[in-house]
Amino acid sequence: MQFQISQELVEHICNLIEEGRDDELLLYLEDVHHADIAEIINELELDQATYIIKLLDSTKTSEALMELEEDVRERILDNLSAKEIAEELENMDTDDAADIISELSEERKQEVIGQIIDEEHAEHIVELLRYDEDSAGGLMAKELVKVNENWSVTGCMAEMRAQAENVTRVHSIYVVDDKNKLKGRLSLKDLLTASSKANISDVYIENVDYVNVHTDGEEVARIMRKYDLEAIPVVDEMGRLVGRITVDDIMDFMREEAERDYQMAAGISEDVEADDSILHLTRARLPWLVLALFGGFISVTVLGTFDTAMQEHGALFFFVPLIAAMAGNVGVQSSAIVLQGLANKSLRGSLFNRLIKEVLLSLLNGFALAILLILGGIFFLGLDFWFGLTVSVSLVAVIIIASLIGTFVPIVLDKWGIDPAMATGPFITTSNDIFGILIYFTIAKVILGF
Amino acid sequence: MQFQISQELVEHICNLIEEGRDDELLLYLEDVHHADIAEIINELELDQATYIIKLLDSTKTSEALMELEEDVRERILDNLSAKEIAEELENMDTDDAADIISELSEERKQEVIGQIIDEEHAEHIVELLRYDEDSAGGLMAKELVKVNENWSVTGCMAEMRAQAENVTRVHSIYVVDDKNKLKGRLSLKDLLTASSKANISDVYIENVDYVNVHTDGEEVARIMRKYDLEAIPVVDEMGRLVGRITVDDIMDFMREEAERDYQMAAGISEDVEADDSILHLTRARLPWLVLALFGGFISVTVLGTFDTAMQEHGALFFFVPLIAAMAGNVGVQSSAIVLQGLANKSLRGSLFNRLIKEVLLSLLNGFALAILLILGGIFFLGLDFWFGLTVSVSLVAVIIIASLIGTFVPIVLDKWGIDPAMATGPFITTSNDIFGILIYFTIAKVILGF
Repeated sequence: MQFQISQELVEHICNLIEEGRDDELLLYLEDVHHADIAEIINELELDQATYIIKLLDSTKTSEALMELEEDVRERILDNLSAKEIAEELENMDTDDAADIISELSEERKQEVIGQIIDEEHAEHIVELLRYDEDSAGGLMAKELVKVNENWSVTGCMAEMRAQAENVTRVHSIYVVDDKNKLKGRLSLKDLLTASSKANISDVYIENVDYVNVHTDGEEVARIMRKYDLEAIPVVDEMGRLVGRITVDDIMDFMREEAERDYQMAAGISEDVEADDSILHLTRARLPWLVLALFGGFISVTVLGTFDTAMQEHGALFFFVPLIAAMAGNVGVQSSAIVLQGLANKSLRGSLFNRLIKEVLLSLLNGFALAILLILGGIFFLGLDFWFGLTVSVSLVAVIIIASLIGTFVPIVLDKWGIDPAMATGPFITTSNDIFGILIYFTIAKVILGF
Repeated sequence: MQFQISQELVEHICNLIEEGRDDELLLYLEDVHHADIAEIINELELDQATYIIKLLDSTKTSEALMELEEDVRERILDNLSAKEIAEELENMDTDDAADIISELSEERKQEVIGQIIDEEHAEHIVELLRYDEDSAGGLMAKELVKVNENWSVTGCMAEMRAQAENVTRVHSIYVVDDKNKLKGRLSLKDLLTASSKANISDVYIENVDYVNVHTDGEEVARIMRKYDLEAIPVVDEMGRLVGRITVDDIMDFMREEAERDYQMAAGISEDVEADDSILHLTRARLPWLVLALFGGFISVTVLGTFDTAMQEHGALFFFVPLIAAMAGNVGVQSSAIVLQGLANKSLRGSLFNRLIKEVLLSLLNGFALAILLILGGIFFLGLDFWFGLTVSVSLVAVIIIASLIGTFVPIVLDKWGIDPAMATGPFITTSNDIFGILIYFTIAKVILGF
């Protein structure tokens, strides 16, 4: 039952386009969902993609445009006139339209907005453009169904039906006063079961969750998830109802956030996909690698200062990657757990207690690993006792320091208002490499003396 | 407007419990949302938490139980009798009830199910327990609103209202035939605007997205996200409507998946939170560290075989952490991009083309870094030309190999049906450390000769 894109399907469409068989093409795509049309367009050449967008009705293409990969969409929009883009925007919800417009150049923006015929729609889009894209204001749409608290249930049914025509999905009906201040909500279920004689003020629920236009998107997601909401109203500084955020937009937002965090942890600094251009991928990957390279320079320098050890205790250098790897891994583990705690707001207790806990945890892990290291070192690698002791003691020390850095840095960054996700991946592995090596050789110097 | 938990609030509740002021406690918690009650319970001692669960009405506590942290819930359930648990389950949706029951021991399961009074509810729960928890069957609930295609719109309104009483939120009304086979759906919006004289078969939409009970949860999430669905019906092998999955359950599922992937990438093998016990955290963190330790042993051995280089070219060893770090970082970057492509099903083209692309990308990154390395090495570290060349050539080679491993391994694991997320984090950094060092010294041996 699921739509399945295939090479044959794409080729068939290419043929229809090339031979200009528009009627067949229209018929063929008539029952295809806009998300599937987007999937097809992603596979086409730019000219063919533009052809399809121009051919199909804009009620359908406006939705398909939203589902396209960003770079594909950008190139198609470059091929459309301001008037054609405006036509697409007329058929979009205000939040989607604002997203599209914000991708255009300043000059093009003006031009496109000027071409939108529906004055109110244009005003709404302009309003949405004012908000930060990751805030509730940037995520909300203007489309919603609202009724005045002073109306009667029967009296507002007609009005509501008219409003519902413009709203893709009715989640809640919001109740406002004469000044448009949010007072409460009505669910569709309530309406199904309410007496038609009642007054709105008798039946509406006063207790309604809402967010402010400036509320951060992650906080909106947390509230909607916690209270299982499918839509949340957004109010301005004066408590006036200005928009609503629906769960599908929040799902997309959550997914993008999760991908961004994951990529940040993997040392990728821009939102990229496997199919992006090599140049785009390089721009996303090279910065962290340069950082790691400079970190490498520091570790070269640190190791250079211990070159006197090479004469008698050359084998110490063989254990450098082992120590560095343990420091990096432990640091990433600690920082990942702290980061998730920060994101979920589930991090309780003081920083001091948390660091104490990390020390205990590291001691436990460290001793287990030290025993394995001594056994492995003596039996498999044939180390002598003092040497084995040096490496083991260093390992425990390195694990403790690495876990403290991994715990401390994200918490402090978060307190300073910097995204703590910065403190994971390459950053933590690089700094822990350096500290790990420094600690290792310092301890070796004390125990072995060189 | 948002509920904000505080030390004072928790203390106030503790006092009310200790002094046995039940009436005040009930009054105080009356208007508190169940998700907020769960937040409060997470902060309480076990005895106090159990006290609140027993005191409050089970319509409220059943919902609060679902929002609790898993280990807190487990301990509370241990304190409740089978009858008390059964009472909570009676008030839960079937999917939640099945989740709770599956956390109990086999013996307790039987006992609790036997105590559920509503026979149909018990049957539904037992049915849900049969499915894998990450499949559509394991995610769905039995609660839904359905109508027969042969009914008239007016005739089914009463029936629908009765059904809607048992369903927290009505998303779609599903249309089935006499054999309960899914035929289509009706939206509430359609009902708002439909003529009451029409027949169901005249007004319903035939084109309905659905999934099979065995569909994987990630696939369900992908479909719901792609088509912006708020609920999706689930059918069995014979196309009969057996349940539905709502968007809030899928949001929770997506979040858990994202956390699991993130933790896997960070070398954490069990679902843990910062506030779990040290033993639990050790169990999650130690396995990957042990793997990294064994990887370390291998790199010690590899380095040991090149010990003849130490006499004349000791400085080679100073660059080991730099080379290993670059190999690790590049590998993690490549694998992360491939993993996200696999998860989004956006990975197109052949494996061979993908590997070619990685080679080109690595050449670009590698040359940029090699130039930086030569400049930095000669000016800051005072290397001679041949030595600088050795390290630079090795760096380019290591970056190419590391990115190929990072790309190849997850794709192959995925083809073999193994979770490709295994192939990131510690696994990729450890193996790339070893390969990186091996390549580095082999190239050094060729250029410098030792």
